[in-house]
Amino acid sequence: MPDMQEILNEIVAELAQESERGKVADYIPQLAHVDPSQFAISLATVEGDRFSAGCATTPFSIQSISKVFTLTIALGKWGDGLWSKVGREPSGDPFNSIVQLEHEGGKPRNPFINAGAIAVVDAIMMGHEPKETLAEILSFVRYIADDNSICFDHQVAASEMEHKHRNASLAHFMKAFGRLRHDVDKVLGTYFHQCAIAMSSDQLAHAGLFLASDGVNRPSNLRVVSPQRARRINSLMMMCGHYDASGEFAFRVGLPGKSGVGGGILAIAPGRGSLAVWSPGLDRYGNSLLGARALEMFVQRTGWSVFGH
Amino acid sequence: MPDMQEILNEIVAELAQESERGKVADYIPQLAHVDPSQFAISLATVEGDRFSAGCATTPFSIQSISKVFTLTIALGKWGDGLWSKVGREPSGDPFNSIVQLEHEGGKPRNPFINAGAIAVVDAIMMGHEPKETLAEILSFVRYIADDNSICFDHQVAASEMEHKHRNASLAHFMKAFGRLRHDVDKVLGTYFHQCAIAMSSDQLAHAGLFLASDGVNRPSNLRVVSPQRARRINSLMMMCGHYDASGEFAFRVGLPGKSGVGGGILAIAPGRGSLAVWSPGLDRYGNSLLGARALEMFVQRTGWSVFGH
Amino acid sequence: MPDMQEILNEIVAELAQESERGKVADYIPQLAHVDPSQFAISLATVEGDRFSAGCATTPFSIQSISKVFTLTIALGKWGDGLWSKVGREPSGDPFNSIVQLEHEGGKPRNPFINAGAIAVVDAIMMGHEPKETLAEILSFVRYIADDNSICFDHQVAASEMEHKHRNASLAHFMKAFGRLRHDVDKVLGTYFHQCAIAMSSDQLAHAGLFLASDGVNRPSNLRVVSPQRARRINSLMMMCGHYDASGEFAFRVGLPGKSGVGGGILAIAPGRGSLAVWSPGLDRYGNSLLGARALEMFVQRTGWSVFGH
Amino acid sequence: MPDMQEILNEIVAELAQESERGKVADYIPQLAHVDPSQFAISLATVEGDRFSAGCATTPFSIQSISKVFTLTIALGKWGDGLWSKVGREPSGDPFNSIVQLEHEGGKPRNPFINAGAIAVVDAIMMGHEPKETLAEILSFVRYIADDNSICFDHQVAASEMEHKHRNASLAHFMKAFGRLRHDVDKVLGTYFHQCAIAMSSDQLAHAGLFLASDGVNRPSNLRVVSPQRARRINSLMMMCGHYDASGEFAFRVGLPGKSGVGGGILAIAPGRGSLAVWSPGLDRYGNSLLGARALEMFVQRTGWSVFGH
Repeated sequence: MPDMQEILNEIVAELAQESERGKVADYIPQLAHVDPSQFAISLATVEGDRFSAGCATTPFSIQSISKVFTLTIALGKWGDGLWSKVGREPSGDPFNSIVQLEHEGGKPRNPFINAGAIAVVDAIMMGHEPKETLAEILSFVRYIADDNSICFDHQVAASEMEHKHRNASLAHFMKAFGRLRHDVDKVLGTYFHQCAIAMSSDQLAHAGLFLASDGVNRPSNLRVVSPQRARRINSLMMMCGHYDASGEFAFRVGLPGKSGVGGGILAIAPGRGSLAVWSPGLDRYGNSLLGARALEMFVQRTGWSVFGH
Repeated sequence: MPDMQEILNEIVAELAQESERGKVADYIPQLAHVDPSQFAISLATVEGDRFSAGCATTPFSIQSISKVFTLTIALGKWGDGLWSKVGREPSGDPFNSIVQLEHEGGKPRNPFINAGAIAVVDAIMMGHEPKETLAEILSFVRYIADDNSICFDHQVAASEMEHKHRNASLAHFMKAFGRLRHDVDKVLGTYFHQCAIAMSSDQLAHAGLFLASDGVNRPSNLRVVSPQRARRINSLMMMCGHYDASGEFAFRVGLPGKSGVGGGILAIAPGRGSLAVWSPGLDRYGNSLLGARALEMFVQRTGWSVFGH
Repeated sequence: MPDMQEILNEIVAELAQESERGKVADYIPQLAHVDPSQFAISLATVEGDRFSAGCATTPFSIQSISKVFTLTIALGKWGDGLWSKVGREPSGDPFNSIVQLEHEGGKPRNPFINAGAIAVVDAIMMGHEPKETLAEILSFVRYIADDNSICFDHQVAASEMEHKHRNASLAHFMKAFGRLRHDVDKVLGTYFHQCAIAMSSDQLAHAGLFLASDGVNRPSNLRVVSPQRARRINSLMMMCGHYDASGEFAFRVGLPGKSGVGGGILAIAPGRGSLAVWSPGLDRYGNSLLGARALEMFVQRTGWSVFGH
Repeated sequence: MPDMQEILNEIVAELAQESERGKVADYIPQLAHVDPSQFAISLATVEGDRFSAGCATTPFSIQSISKVFTLTIALGKWGDGLWSKVGREPSGDPFNSIVQLEHEGGKPRNPFINAGAIAVVDAIMMGHEPKETLAEILSFVRYIADDNSICFDHQVAASEMEHKHRNASLAHFMKAFGRLRHDVDKVLGTYFHQCAIAMSSDQLAHAGLFLASDGVNRPSNLRVVSPQRARRINSLMMMCGHYDASGEFAFRVGLPGKSGVGGGILAIAPGRGSLAVWSPGLDRYGNSLLGARALEMFVQRTGWSVFGH
């Protein structure tokens, strides 16, 4: 096994010199004002080791990476019944496209596009209020990250709510097709808070580890999901984790991953470890430009691609 | 390591009792008349072992599985230049959809939908006649399968040509956008012959082995492609190998795979082995119904999913 | 000139025997409970004559026919500037499709699909509250109908608001693209009230007369719009007045017309007169089944098609 | 009645000074080399008068205007049965879009988009060879234009055949859906010749007159179609005659019209006359830029819009 700490250090050093860092998300001020020069990478291995480099304890807005966690919760509540509410195919469309919804009767293509994640939140709520649902989501994230200091960034959530219109359009559309049980504004409020969870890359790598280790949380050894469910969540991350650039990520990195517009990416190397990277600048698909680059470098050095050494 | 021969035998025995076997492709008589009760499964491991069960030496029409081989040839000729001719994202559409082509200026979304495979053939031709290009394709397939008895089924090719209209529409569309260099009818003739290669599951498993073993042909140890290229071809098979049911295959099987309308599927377990299955009945997406089931059973018993045990 | 009263009587008599009357709109109870056997037809001629048959003084919900009146108001405020907010091409899609919006940056194709009508209301509001805007709309309709008894049906409006989700999706979508100036809920509230205007066919035929008489209200002889604007509104009614069945209406009836889901149709015979029909049962495109039939019969008997005798 | 000759002269004089004349079609050399400064306008009235200005006896390639004539022939053979082969709704898409075809099972939206016109030619052929069908089409055009000197421009037809790919794509697509009875290349050959008919604006105005005069050819007084059929063809020209700019033409000109990529437009003023204009430069929708302008000027001066004075 290569020296992981050295690899992470090299990646940080090499990317520090990169001038083209992408474009920070600017649709809300809270994201627009993030310093684009920040970078972090963290690794949690199934053996229980932890490595990190860069500003790996600085919290950032995990945004869509939260969809992995809410999907896990929803599968716990609904099992395969969830798939009547949301599909599991790549969409071939941007994260917020509504075209596919109209062609498929309001059923989102997968749980990682916005419409799908909104349907997943609705599935989790089960008649409860946003406050209760949010407590449940946060409690789950704290549990898998083994860290009770993780919180929502309420300013980010409030700002998202102000700029809700594209997601509101998706939610009302699904509501019109009878695809949402709860009040649209309550679902959206919950969704925006979920996306506004703030975590550091260290916390995120830790939180994702159960997906790398057959569903068992490390080092606590508590089972989060069955091995089969861990595999299936990984397959969804591989196929749909980067919107309409999922093929590109699979081609270059070769790991299941989920990106967020805050610049984070969570990537899973099954049987090996969980990786979190953070670089706020995005490519034109809304995925972290240097984050994906860092993961590509990591996989080249370690041979951890699921598609071969 | 489990007893592979026993696993294959069990799968054959269990599926033999299955009455719901899907629907044999019927758009050409040569495929429509295939006996749907036939079933074969073959495994070639990176250690050089061979296992098979069912009618594993009966040749069948590999159809779209051939796209993996022509992609490999085209990457050898063009390297990354190929990606200016064809994309590498899942399409979210059926194999023969033309809608995506119009929205994206005639550039096919990936090399495994029909339009993409036609563009790949055009890329391989490089000014040569269909006859020469076909000789080259056949020679490559014989080489990786280590079997000079492999042939085209000219009757199948001729019948495909008679029913060419959907593919002709795609080809003329790309030609109109300047995406094909060669004469449309010559490209189509080559494409239909390529799809009409007849192979047994034993031959197919053998031919795919270089993708499981970092690009090296076993047991000859001759390098076919670089390890990186093998990984990348695998990633494309994972993301796009089953048309608009690629997510479903990844979810259930968790291996890179490519299906053909003749009822075959080639699946790659990187670092472990190459699997070929054949069952002529198709599901509604045009993928082998029992073939995918067999692979799911195999992965459950062996833990060979790339997404975790 | 044929005996108009006799023609109307014949139409009423003939259609009274029709058993296939279409399906009453059922998405809100207020429309679902309307008696489908009701029928009315009214004609106001440019010479000042009035003819009617059936229950021509019974008010019904004019729904989308109101879009003709709000378009007229908006053109008065914005002139050709309105066309930067909404297009003037037939959409080829159903009245509530959102696909076109995504493909065209949130700009509705024409003022008669729902998205377009919502954009038109937003254009009319000009910073005012819904109450004021509604007062203005009602005042205009009363003026052109020369009848101050015309009112909103607030129960219909409230029920529409409860079932707002499809339209809310369209409105939030346009808001996300910066296409609406006002608060989405206020725009929707105004829109639903506008659609809930209740009028009889007599009132409606009277209200539409300015479009048949070069923009001059009859018999008052007060100018409502310029002759050019009247022509242009007529052209929009012809091209887009029946959603994705506009071609069918032009083919069969040959008059500019606008239908509403309440079962009404307003049709304009330029230089001759204004016709209103009402039959609550709809065809599968959401247009009055017998209403269109009645207009077709009328045009056959009178030769009033704009496309020739 | 205004002095028609004076109006035509004014239009020619005014447009002669126009520097922005659009862009001549350049997909085949025969059209690309046409002198863009040429202009012609011709009027044939139902009273039998003839007026023209500009180079009104110079033949030009009528291209898609021919679709009006083949539609007329096809309706003569199939009556309302034609509508099972082709729809009659505006498409909202460009003339050569294939997207709509896939969404609607290969049935073209209307007879004036390319796919629809190809289906109409196939309907006319009725088992005959292209040569016979072309003789029939030419004979019909000569009859309604009362001029036996009208011919195909075989160079244009041959060049179209060389650049056939977009239309070949449409035709093969329809063939794949069983929508064409005849051999694709024969249908295309016939279609390209039909489009390559060369006519002067004088001839074209004469040929269209039966549509303005209830289906009766003037001055011969021979009936070409029934009054109802003339009305219906006019309605189709209004709704679909200018592709995805049909709404614009209706808005500005207010007459049924059909444009061709050669720069001609045929417009019908029912009960009044038939107008032909020619200016080779096109707008971005593929319609004659100054041709439409000329018709707009004509209608403003004469009040001949079907939508009011």
